[in-house]
Amino acid sequence: MLRLHGRQGRRFAQTDGYDAYYAGAEANACVLLARLGIGVDYVTVLPDNDIAMAGVRQLQAQGVGTDHIVYTGEKLGVYFTEQGNAIRPTRVIYDRDGSSYAKTGPGVIDWRSCLDGAAWFHWSGIAAAVSQHSAEASAEALAIAREKGVCISADFNYRTTLWKYGKHPREVMPDLLQHSTVAVADLDSAAVYYGIETDKSASFEDRFRQCSRTLKERIPPLEVLAMSFRTPHGIQHAYSGALYYKGEYYFSTVHELPFITDQIGSGDAFTAGMLYGLMRGLLPQQIIEFAVACGALKQSIAGDWALVTKSEVEQFIQHGSSGRIIR
Amino acid sequence: MLRLHGRQGRRFAQTDGYDAYYAGAEANACVLLARLGIGVDYVTVLPDNDIAMAGVRQLQAQGVGTDHIVYTGEKLGVYFTEQGNAIRPTRVIYDRDGSSYAKTGPGVIDWRSCLDGAAWFHWSGIAAAVSQHSAEASAEALAIAREKGVCISADFNYRTTLWKYGKHPREVMPDLLQHSTVAVADLDSAAVYYGIETDKSASFEDRFRQCSRTLKERIPPLEVLAMSFRTPHGIQHAYSGALYYKGEYYFSTVHELPFITDQIGSGDAFTAGMLYGLMRGLLPQQIIEFAVACGALKQSIAGDWALVTKSEVEQFIQHGSSGRIIR
Amino acid sequence: MLRLHGRQGRRFAQTDGYDAYYAGAEANACVLLARLGIGVDYVTVLPDNDIAMAGVRQLQAQGVGTDHIVYTGEKLGVYFTEQGNAIRPTRVIYDRDGSSYAKTGPGVIDWRSCLDGAAWFHWSGIAAAVSQHSAEASAEALAIAREKGVCISADFNYRTTLWKYGKHPREVMPDLLQHSTVAVADLDSAAVYYGIETDKSASFEDRFRQCSRTLKERIPPLEVLAMSFRTPHGIQHAYSGALYYKGEYYFSTVHELPFITDQIGSGDAFTAGMLYGLMRGLLPQQIIEFAVACGALKQSIAGDWALVTKSEVEQFIQHGSSGRIIR
Amino acid sequence: MLRLHGRQGRRFAQTDGYDAYYAGAEANACVLLARLGIGVDYVTVLPDNDIAMAGVRQLQAQGVGTDHIVYTGEKLGVYFTEQGNAIRPTRVIYDRDGSSYAKTGPGVIDWRSCLDGAAWFHWSGIAAAVSQHSAEASAEALAIAREKGVCISADFNYRTTLWKYGKHPREVMPDLLQHSTVAVADLDSAAVYYGIETDKSASFEDRFRQCSRTLKERIPPLEVLAMSFRTPHGIQHAYSGALYYKGEYYFSTVHELPFITDQIGSGDAFTAGMLYGLMRGLLPQQIIEFAVACGALKQSIAGDWALVTKSEVEQFIQHGSSGRIIR
Amino acid sequence: MLRLHGRQGRRFAQTDGYDAYYAGAEANACVLLARLGIGVDYVTVLPDNDIAMAGVRQLQAQGVGTDHIVYTGEKLGVYFTEQGNAIRPTRVIYDRDGSSYAKTGPGVIDWRSCLDGAAWFHWSGIAAAVSQHSAEASAEALAIAREKGVCISADFNYRTTLWKYGKHPREVMPDLLQHSTVAVADLDSAAVYYGIETDKSASFEDRFRQCSRTLKERIPPLEVLAMSFRTPHGIQHAYSGALYYKGEYYFSTVHELPFITDQIGSGDAFTAGMLYGLMRGLLPQQIIEFAVACGALKQSIAGDWALVTKSEVEQFIQHGSSGRIIR
Amino acid sequence: MLRLHGRQGRRFAQTDGYDAYYAGAEANACVLLARLGIGVDYVTVLPDNDIAMAGVRQLQAQGVGTDHIVYTGEKLGVYFTEQGNAIRPTRVIYDRDGSSYAKTGPGVIDWRSCLDGAAWFHWSGIAAAVSQHSAEASAEALAIAREKGVCISADFNYRTTLWKYGKHPREVMPDLLQHSTVAVADLDSAAVYYGIETDKSASFEDRFRQCSRTLKERIPPLEVLAMSFRTPHGIQHAYSGALYYKGEYYFSTVHELPFITDQIGSGDAFTAGMLYGLMRGLLPQQIIEFAVACGALKQSIAGDWALVTKSEVEQFIQHGSSGRIIR
Ligand SMILES: [Ca+2]
Ligand SMILES: [Ca+2]
Ligand SMILES: [Ca+2]
Ligand SMILES: [Ca+2]
Ligand SMILES: [Ca+2]
Ligand SMILES: [Ca+2]
Ligand SMILES: [Ca+2]
Ligand SMILES: [Ca+2]
Ligand SMILES: [Ca+2]
Ligand SMILES: [Ca+2]
Ligand SMILES: [Ca+2]
Ligand SMILES: [Ca+2]
Ligand code: NI
Ligand code: NI
Ligand code: NI
Ligand code: NI
Ligand code: NI
Ligand code: NI
Ligand code: NI
Ligand code: NI
Ligand code: NI
Ligand code: NI
Ligand code: NI
Ligand code: NI
Ligand code: NI
Ligand code: NI
Ligand code: NI
Ligand code: NI
Ligand code: NI
Ligand code: NI
Repeated sequence: MLRLHGRQGRRFAQTDGYDAYYAGAEANACVLLARLGIGVDYVTVLPDNDIAMAGVRQLQAQGVGTDHIVYTGEKLGVYFTEQGNAIRPTRVIYDRDGSSYAKTGPGVIDWRSCLDGAAWFHWSGIAAAVSQHSAEASAEALAIAREKGVCISADFNYRTTLWKYGKHPREVMPDLLQHSTVAVADLDSAAVYYGIETDKSASFEDRFRQCSRTLKERIPPLEVLAMSFRTPHGIQHAYSGALYYKGEYYFSTVHELPFITDQIGSGDAFTAGMLYGLMRGLLPQQIIEFAVACGALKQSIAGDWALVTKSEVEQFIQHGSSGRIIR
Repeated sequence: MLRLHGRQGRRFAQTDGYDAYYAGAEANACVLLARLGIGVDYVTVLPDNDIAMAGVRQLQAQGVGTDHIVYTGEKLGVYFTEQGNAIRPTRVIYDRDGSSYAKTGPGVIDWRSCLDGAAWFHWSGIAAAVSQHSAEASAEALAIAREKGVCISADFNYRTTLWKYGKHPREVMPDLLQHSTVAVADLDSAAVYYGIETDKSASFEDRFRQCSRTLKERIPPLEVLAMSFRTPHGIQHAYSGALYYKGEYYFSTVHELPFITDQIGSGDAFTAGMLYGLMRGLLPQQIIEFAVACGALKQSIAGDWALVTKSEVEQFIQHGSSGRIIR
Repeated sequence: MLRLHGRQGRRFAQTDGYDAYYAGAEANACVLLARLGIGVDYVTVLPDNDIAMAGVRQLQAQGVGTDHIVYTGEKLGVYFTEQGNAIRPTRVIYDRDGSSYAKTGPGVIDWRSCLDGAAWFHWSGIAAAVSQHSAEASAEALAIAREKGVCISADFNYRTTLWKYGKHPREVMPDLLQHSTVAVADLDSAAVYYGIETDKSASFEDRFRQCSRTLKERIPPLEVLAMSFRTPHGIQHAYSGALYYKGEYYFSTVHELPFITDQIGSGDAFTAGMLYGLMRGLLPQQIIEFAVACGALKQSIAGDWALVTKSEVEQFIQHGSSGRIIR
Repeated sequence: MLRLHGRQGRRFAQTDGYDAYYAGAEANACVLLARLGIGVDYVTVLPDNDIAMAGVRQLQAQGVGTDHIVYTGEKLGVYFTEQGNAIRPTRVIYDRDGSSYAKTGPGVIDWRSCLDGAAWFHWSGIAAAVSQHSAEASAEALAIAREKGVCISADFNYRTTLWKYGKHPREVMPDLLQHSTVAVADLDSAAVYYGIETDKSASFEDRFRQCSRTLKERIPPLEVLAMSFRTPHGIQHAYSGALYYKGEYYFSTVHELPFITDQIGSGDAFTAGMLYGLMRGLLPQQIIEFAVACGALKQSIAGDWALVTKSEVEQFIQHGSSGRIIR
Repeated sequence: MLRLHGRQGRRFAQTDGYDAYYAGAEANACVLLARLGIGVDYVTVLPDNDIAMAGVRQLQAQGVGTDHIVYTGEKLGVYFTEQGNAIRPTRVIYDRDGSSYAKTGPGVIDWRSCLDGAAWFHWSGIAAAVSQHSAEASAEALAIAREKGVCISADFNYRTTLWKYGKHPREVMPDLLQHSTVAVADLDSAAVYYGIETDKSASFEDRFRQCSRTLKERIPPLEVLAMSFRTPHGIQHAYSGALYYKGEYYFSTVHELPFITDQIGSGDAFTAGMLYGLMRGLLPQQIIEFAVACGALKQSIAGDWALVTKSEVEQFIQHGSSGRIIR
Repeated sequence: MLRLHGRQGRRFAQTDGYDAYYAGAEANACVLLARLGIGVDYVTVLPDNDIAMAGVRQLQAQGVGTDHIVYTGEKLGVYFTEQGNAIRPTRVIYDRDGSSYAKTGPGVIDWRSCLDGAAWFHWSGIAAAVSQHSAEASAEALAIAREKGVCISADFNYRTTLWKYGKHPREVMPDLLQHSTVAVADLDSAAVYYGIETDKSASFEDRFRQCSRTLKERIPPLEVLAMSFRTPHGIQHAYSGALYYKGEYYFSTVHELPFITDQIGSGDAFTAGMLYGLMRGLLPQQIIEFAVACGALKQSIAGDWALVTKSEVEQFIQHGSSGRIIR
């Protein structure tokens, strides 16, 4: 997907051009996993044109495998962003209808070949939100992943302005999520997909526990659930994470983040950080600290991708943000 | 429609952003007509979002009426351009499927109100190329224009990469064009729409005469037909125009144009220049000279719009291109 | 007026170019009123050149009427700005002497025609500060507005570095302001124009009450008086407003504004917000909340114009600044 | 003087900012002379603000002496430029009225101190065109230069759009030019200042001889007269120079210049090249070749200044333009 | 190697920043080969820092293998470029001394592993020009390549401003070149390396024949030799190629290239085109046409890399440069 | 030295170009001293190329004398910077090995001539860190300065990533520093050069007193020692200074600095402010306030140079940072 970001903090109403970044929830997660040394393949459907190809090449530059991408259809998904600031919100205009991906139904991608030898399949709720066809393609992939015994992880990722093809997410998502072993969620998605309401006056930790308990009931194979939390208070964003791991709860350090450069993609960086921790066998507390550090660092970088190294993540865990100069 | 033009002459494969221009064949013609002092309204269908609205405001800035624009649907048509140069061609990638305009069928625009008190209705073949719906909307508009006795002009404007909805242009265009009093065409469009083949070894003037004769037979009310011609020879483009006007042929000065800044939109500027000449009652030779000067000047300006004044067009007719400094 | 703003936060001493914005106290107020749906005309005097005309077209794009602008003289007023930050102040260099506007005396603008059918006449003290001629033109306009029974509102807008034509503001402004029904002022202007000193140790609310009482005595028809207040404290600016409305005092929410993008023009946005509230018959508390929200949002946008919608202002009133993403 | 040049070839009607260059006929000539190793002082009047000071510092960077600049008044002269191309002309909008320089009358600059120990005084006709005051300041300077026996050189430099203070150039310039030993002129200026008409059908060489003969009669001390000529033909500019030197005529190589980057300032570079040749005692043919090479090279450089070295000028004389790479 | 290119055509003397491109003769050739579908590995030595790594990632994005790059030392080679134009030459300032590559001696790169399974080894004379150490590393690689029976091709690539380590190229290059089967050369390099002087008054074709004959004697295994030729004439560059192939001579179409965007890297594109032709078994005339088309197209693209597709090269061979729009 | 700063806050991993600033500890200090009216000469060794010369011209523009610069060698020192923010640190990559300066040994600069008539010699520890040669050149300069009785001041300026030529700083620096009358230091440098460890749990004031006492013992002529301190706390940096002056201690106001634009060069601005205070005979408390204000203001300006005026420094001392607009 192509992100077109209004220049120099200008509003849509006044910008005379757009900076271009390649993006997409799964692509963003792949980029960080690849940078951290995990072998990943990004599987999607794109039109066969030079703009889409430039994005594929940028993924390759980050070390992401692109061999299973299918080229068909005519349109690359686009989204436009207007940079927000402490006074006015960031705005997003999606232009994804009719994209090569949205038109992808079952049979387009050769999932059996994609998953051959794979240990893990990660997908995001956005994949099911774009169109009926793409929801069916997700179902197809999940069925094959399950058949092959691949570990399945999901990012709930509910977006109000998608889901326009006539189904309520509650009709679609529980089925798709039912075989997940690992999930990243947020309280809003859980409410929409499963009707889980938590006590808004309770602490984040308690709401996470409440939500986890219900989700665990609704998704029996679920062993790991993670959420990130953001509380703007005064100038800063307080940013932290919670992890349910095989029956226990773990909560990360709370990072105070002033001066967000680009908030978009921080959820995907958090997800990639958590997946990295699981894949590398870190301890649960280490996993959630690593995931939160990834999500935090992303917010200091323009574009959707967390262009960081493992060593930078580790330094952030140790020292937090600091305004130093590293000469 | 939004045009996104790769920065600083960069290829799609290497650009990191896009300059934004608003465009579209009819919009481009409206802008120049309004700048020349003709009262015009641009009628189209757009999504109700800030990016589309920024384009509407730019049209208003040029003096184009926008009261009849209908806001519905979700997508603004987009096209991406890669700047060509003397060695490699300019490239265009369209992203128009599913746009608010493409989804427009009959009944969306209130053509009766639009044409109330209007003297002229101008449309372009692209309007019929985007989708079955939009072709039907064109037919609806033309029927009402004819009913109201409004003068109808058409720009043939054939684009190979559109026309994807299952009809051959020959099945659609002759019907839509049959009531045109004024037309801008080109030899390729005439061949596609009507099967008119001219003698490729003949001079441009003779080919224009051949084509005009046949078109006049096929479109009985046709009184005025104009074409522009471009011959790259060596470094320069030779650029000129031809006019059939009530039975007589007129040919413009041939302008040698070195260093094209932006070729896109020159046809629309030519069209607007011809319409201006007709509306202001210029003599036929003046009309074609004016039209060609508009088309030439456009090519010295970035973006689709001919941001010129009447006085600049007249100076160009008198002095041609010159590399002077006007202090 | 043309604002030339040093690029990318560079100092005058180091910038290699300037971003261009069109500006001016009354123009800024017109833009926001037009965006909020109020029919407005901007009346001024400009030179007849392409740079001035580009500004006029940008005003038209915002929906501001420009039919009464008079084109004469040779110079567009210019001001240069150097972006300040939390450590060093924003700097302004004016270049307005001898502008078409500064040379405007009585008889240049046809005020009778301008005010024909108008319900409201708004002007700013800057109009009287530029030159003796322009002060006389303001007097002429005010006399005709009064004669026609148009509601008169004034923005005190004292600028130390203008007022160079040999008169003290106190000799000029009280006469011009004497028929105002509505005014926007600030404590400094009131001190310069009327010698009103308020108790610096008192609260802002009390100082506003003191100042209002004296102004009400000095300007008998005055029914509405508004002021905005800004207190930088630590990193943030506390920003709020006060309204005197037919004998009662109303005070807005205090907004904490971190990260000012561009402070210039916030007073004009506040003024436009208040005028909007009056024109739409909002309740006094609503008026001052709306005005303050307009002034606050302006500070998140580059350039002098408050490029916001009514719905954004209302959301800001409800939620304040929040760092959200609106997808 | 500050030159503000519309960004990236955009028209005034569409640019959203301006690149900034410091300029002015005498300043431009000083810069090249200083780069060529000649000790020069630039004498002018500027306002005491950071934008003017940034220009002074750029002159110092080029090695130009600035000790005699007087700081008074409020306005730096400005001119706006729109980049032309092979199809449309370069456009200039002046904003110089009321500048510190235009308000300079006799007694402001201490010419006696400026010329103390100086061997040469060079001035341009623009200095007399801006205002009555500035013409008087030129007269004062020339009287003192003559009294001190300093060699006087003049650049005729007629600009139609200046000379607005109520005098015809013919009333002013002959007096000011009467003591010139060296002059740079052009046929238009000679026609305006002295009524010298040359035979338009004659060759440039013959027209130069005709003009020189009459000017020599009108300016008795004149020993050296130079002109540059530019003939756009097809795509290229033919650019050459002519020199009258103590009774003999010399004509330079004709350079074919394709792709002018920035034509403005080439006359001043030509002038500086000629003055350099005279000051260094080159032979007449060498002088005119050097001057023309300076004027040609300037046209390959953005901004008004000929940022070249002596060695580059000499290489251009030897090899002309060539498209080589110097590694 | 990092190329830093002065912004927007500015001279070194005036630029305020540099565009960044990754470059280097062998890297450039690899990029085009990879884009054409040939499996290639780029072997070099780089420092382990983020700027070098960004370049490696860009190579990966182009499909170039980077597994054999060795990371040691402290400095990435840099070269600065000033964009030339038709009036003044392009200028280059090298900053390569002490780079990781220049410090590379034998034993640093594991050539045996690099060449394991490889069919071809291509190198450039610049590799031997940078330092004594790097010349020795080239010798080591060539010895192993020969031992393994890999086909060896060489680009003569003589640069006057390198070769500073105390050896004349004639002492070094003939030994290194002696086992080449394929070579790209130019008349200057042949003169410097082998003392081959050709008759300057002869045609390019004849000079190529003369040079080829002598080189064939001096490099016994040489079967293929190619050269490109550039003749600036008037505004255009005439650009063509010659091929000696197993005893016969082949000459390409001469392309007239107006408006060079960036000349640097065209030799490497020519080389890659020729290697592609050889590897794919094209006929000799096809090979030289393909190579010349690659070299020509490169000159229309900013940066050192020929970002073209096979299909674009083939279209250029068929149609040449044309100023078309491909919609 | 040339600083290349990644564009618009982009990481090295994603920037497509670099803004260029000229820099270097002594150059930075010279620039501010010259701007404050102190006559200074910058003495260094540079290659004779256009990029170095552009930097020399920028120094001249700031009023810095450059007559004693020696032009030899081939490489200008470069350093690359990646802009940090509140979440991730600023990063620096040095490329100084082999620079003209690093290769400078004794005898290259004519120190006797440089110091002829000079009252003060200031140098920085970086000069001794780059290479054995440059350390020897520093020793030579210091010997001659001492012989001539010039006041010697030193900036300790320890950089971990330099000092690669095989000596520990402790073997080199104490000798070079032993004749300093004035020094700027920091606790880290004092620890590395002299092994001075201060009590980390003590207040900054106490640690400064501890360190001063020991340094005074180790550098007998030392009369003045200054340090600046920075404590990031929450979002802001607390920034202040301490001065040991002839036996007494003085501590500045603590400035809270939010939103650092560019931290690099603030130490050099602090040093220049202190030297200015000493040279102008300010009282000790005034000296340290002046130095700290210079260091603070620098942090609001892009690039290494403190482009401020004396009056701006004085205003900052009076009012601190304030977010005002100065019209
Ligand atoms: Ca812009
Ligand atoms: Ca961003
Ligand atoms: Ca870019
Ligand atoms: Ca364009
Ligand atoms: Ca900008
Ligand atoms: Ca701004
Ligand atoms: Ca722009
Ligand atoms: Ca320019
Ligand atoms: Ca620039
Ligand atoms: Ca380039
Ligand atoms: Ca960029
Ligand atoms: Ca910076
Ligand atoms: Ni940007
Ligand atoms: Ni723009
Ligand atoms: Ni813009
Ligand atoms: Ni870029
Ligand atoms: Ni850019
Ligand atoms: Ni642009
Ligand atoms: Ni910019
Ligand atoms: Ni710049
Ligand atoms: Ni600059
Ligand atoms: Ni810039
Ligand atoms: Ni520019
Ligand atoms: Ni801009
Ligand atoms: Ni620029
Ligand atoms: Ni660029
Ligand atoms: Ni760029
Ligand atoms: Ni930038
Ligand atoms: Ni970029
Ligand atoms: Ni910049």
